[in-house]
Amino acid sequence: MALLSQNPLVFLLVINGDFVAKVQDSSPETKENSFVVTPWLVEGKVDYGKLIEQFGTSPINQEIIERFSKLTGEIHIYLRRGIFYSHRDLDWILDKYEAGEKFALYTGRGPSGRVHLGHLIPWIFTKYLQEKFDAELYFEMTDDEKYLNSQKLSLEQTEKMAFDNMLDLIAVGFDPKKTFIFTDTGYIKSLYGIAAKIAKHTTFSTAKAVFGFDNSTNIGMLFFPALQASVCFLPSVLKGHNVPCLIPAAIDQDPYWRGIAREVAPKLGFYKPAQIHSKFMPGLGQGGKMSSSEPETAIFTTDSIKEVEKKVLGSFTGGRATVEEQRKLGGQPDICPVYHYYNFMFEEEDGELKRIYDDCKSGKLLCGDCKMMLASRVKGFVSDFQTKREKAKEIIDEFLVEDIAGGVRKRSDMH
Amino acid sequence: MALLSQNPLVFLLVINGDFVAKVQDSSPETKENSFVVTPWLVEGKVDYGKLIEQFGTSPINQEIIERFSKLTGEIHIYLRRGIFYSHRDLDWILDKYEAGEKFALYTGRGPSGRVHLGHLIPWIFTKYLQEKFDAELYFEMTDDEKYLNSQKLSLEQTEKMAFDNMLDLIAVGFDPKKTFIFTDTGYIKSLYGIAAKIAKHTTFSTAKAVFGFDNSTNIGMLFFPALQASVCFLPSVLKGHNVPCLIPAAIDQDPYWRGIAREVAPKLGFYKPAQIHSKFMPGLGQGGKMSSSEPETAIFTTDSIKEVEKKVLGSFTGGRATVEEQRKLGGQPDICPVYHYYNFMFEEEDGELKRIYDDCKSGKLLCGDCKMMLASRVKGFVSDFQTKREKAKEIIDEFLVEDIAGGVRKRSDMH
Repeated sequence: MALLSQNPLVFLLVINGDFVAKVQDSSPETKENSFVVTPWLVEGKVDYGKLIEQFGTSPINQEIIERFSKLTGEIHIYLRRGIFYSHRDLDWILDKYEAGEKFALYTGRGPSGRVHLGHLIPWIFTKYLQEKFDAELYFEMTDDEKYLNSQKLSLEQTEKMAFDNMLDLIAVGFDPKKTFIFTDTGYIKSLYGIAAKIAKHTTFSTAKAVFGFDNSTNIGMLFFPALQASVCFLPSVLKGHNVPCLIPAAIDQDPYWRGIAREVAPKLGFYKPAQIHSKFMPGLGQGGKMSSSEPETAIFTTDSIKEVEKKVLGSFTGGRATVEEQRKLGGQPDICPVYHYYNFMFEEEDGELKRIYDDCKSGKLLCGDCKMMLASRVKGFVSDFQTKREKAKEIIDEFLVEDIAGGVRKRSDMH
Repeated sequence: MALLSQNPLVFLLVINGDFVAKVQDSSPETKENSFVVTPWLVEGKVDYGKLIEQFGTSPINQEIIERFSKLTGEIHIYLRRGIFYSHRDLDWILDKYEAGEKFALYTGRGPSGRVHLGHLIPWIFTKYLQEKFDAELYFEMTDDEKYLNSQKLSLEQTEKMAFDNMLDLIAVGFDPKKTFIFTDTGYIKSLYGIAAKIAKHTTFSTAKAVFGFDNSTNIGMLFFPALQASVCFLPSVLKGHNVPCLIPAAIDQDPYWRGIAREVAPKLGFYKPAQIHSKFMPGLGQGGKMSSSEPETAIFTTDSIKEVEKKVLGSFTGGRATVEEQRKLGGQPDICPVYHYYNFMFEEEDGELKRIYDDCKSGKLLCGDCKMMLASRVKGFVSDFQTKREKAKEIIDEFLVEDIAGGVRKRSDMH
């Protein structure tokens, strides 16, 4: 059974099918198989196996999963199910950990109007890593990049969104004692010196090659990769000695680390950051990752419970045209977002997940029932999350780190 | 008498002769007349009249000088003598001032190992403007740019140099209540938000056209123009309403304001910064501006008094091969750094300056005597300056503005 295969790569190839997305490539011969994954664009039918080849990362193999098992006592479902499926230097991070050298976690977010369930995937996994490895987390809200890369948003708007999005992050349940959340604009004093050192070793040519920048790219975006990379080395700078850094993030963020941070690290005397990469959670439509730009197919943490129910019940499925046909042919869970929601977030028991899969395939489980059950679970999750999100408002200061602006020595004179 | 002409432009053309410098242009037809003036390079025989044409600035004409006279009660020698000779929107700044709207001054320095007399020219003039117009001064130490643009210097070194160079600045005598000195790395939190907005409106193409950047330019340098431009708008941001900004600086800095700040200002709703441009103080060698890279021809504020004397007495002059010849033909003050030192800094009386000029031309004043007199004055100036520079160490905090780094809300947890 491919789904529960011991080899995540085999599993991978099976669940690939769900990402049949808006391919906008104009050349007909590439339409079927082409896809684009960059920090700003995920488009087409993502072949995760090919991404490993293209990006030059390593698959998370059985050996690594066993090491996790020994060190943590449990294997997170995202590892078991190949949702976190690729890495760089994860074995090295575990070597260091076993030798008594703790690592720091670093991840982040380009703030947006609303957070959806797909955004939570890396955060949930990061929380697991924090707990199991007693790791500090440095979380960057890239309000500047979001502004620099937007046609419409003001910097004031992206800053505001960053503070709003922090509530979602905090609601995931991180340890305030070990979690440091900041915006780029709010923490720039702590980051800029490190970023300048990275920038000095990064030419326009390099940035162009890594990110596809061109002559019309604004100079803020050109500098930004140095800023995003700087957080990899922040724990080392703050502690005064080299600290291994592990970055859990969706695989589209890989170019920052591959092309910039890992290139520059040895020149500055830092460790190269290690990475662990996730796939994208699908949306509720036919193919494509969950995306804020298609709100009807994304479950936002701030959706009303009614909206959640409506969206789940209105989901595309891998079902057949008629009940009769489905009883006869069975459903198609591999291309069904409803099934993948169980897989990503809403059925932790592997045995139960397998039952859903098998019952769908056999025609025993019909889409209506399956969606009803999912809707109930998603509503429960969102409702619970919203409670935690409200509580987060009261404790945000326990997580936020900020430099103080305004010319402190002479502030009174300046205003 | 061209030297004391009422028309600064005529005067200009006369004193042009002293800048006969290392022309490295390889095409023979341009060797004589070519020159390069950029923020990073001043090379060749600078034709200041042509620079006004090339840069599209306006000459400081008699009308503006008369307005200064009415408003300030005196005309600074740098205006009388055409050392500050070009501007953008200076008339607009004076309109605003007359209408009751005060302007802020902004200038800065790329910190280096040592400050020389040439560096002091814009600062001395800035102090005059501060006094006469009761203006706040925002002074930027570009430690980041100096690092980003250097083959050898570490960021820690340029930061240290910035603090050292502040002593020279403070020794000039600015009003601590109205003067705000900062380094880019130390004040980045206050600057970055403004810089991001400027950067968003500045493409690589623009930066390339303005500064001659290319594909090998590092991404820190690419962003830097936004940071340098940001200070133009800092007073407006701090005050919460638009404040006119006047930038006194050597003319090589003009591209920052022309190409970036003035282009972007209307898009962000700020006033365009006005500028007033100085020429370069010559070195003590044959031609060329005073430059730290030719230390034997530059008087540093930290030179020993012995060194000062040695340098002045060893200066190139416009004298003749023999005393007889000089008595007969007269000297050549227009190409003589010794004469120009009187002009720039060491003879405030126009009548006395004219006497020196005439006595040189007539063969009455010989180079040895002329240099002895200058050496005595330069030694006195440097000695006095060094006393003030020592005192500056005690009051640096009255001038320095800094953001506080380190994640203040959670600083204790992070260390």
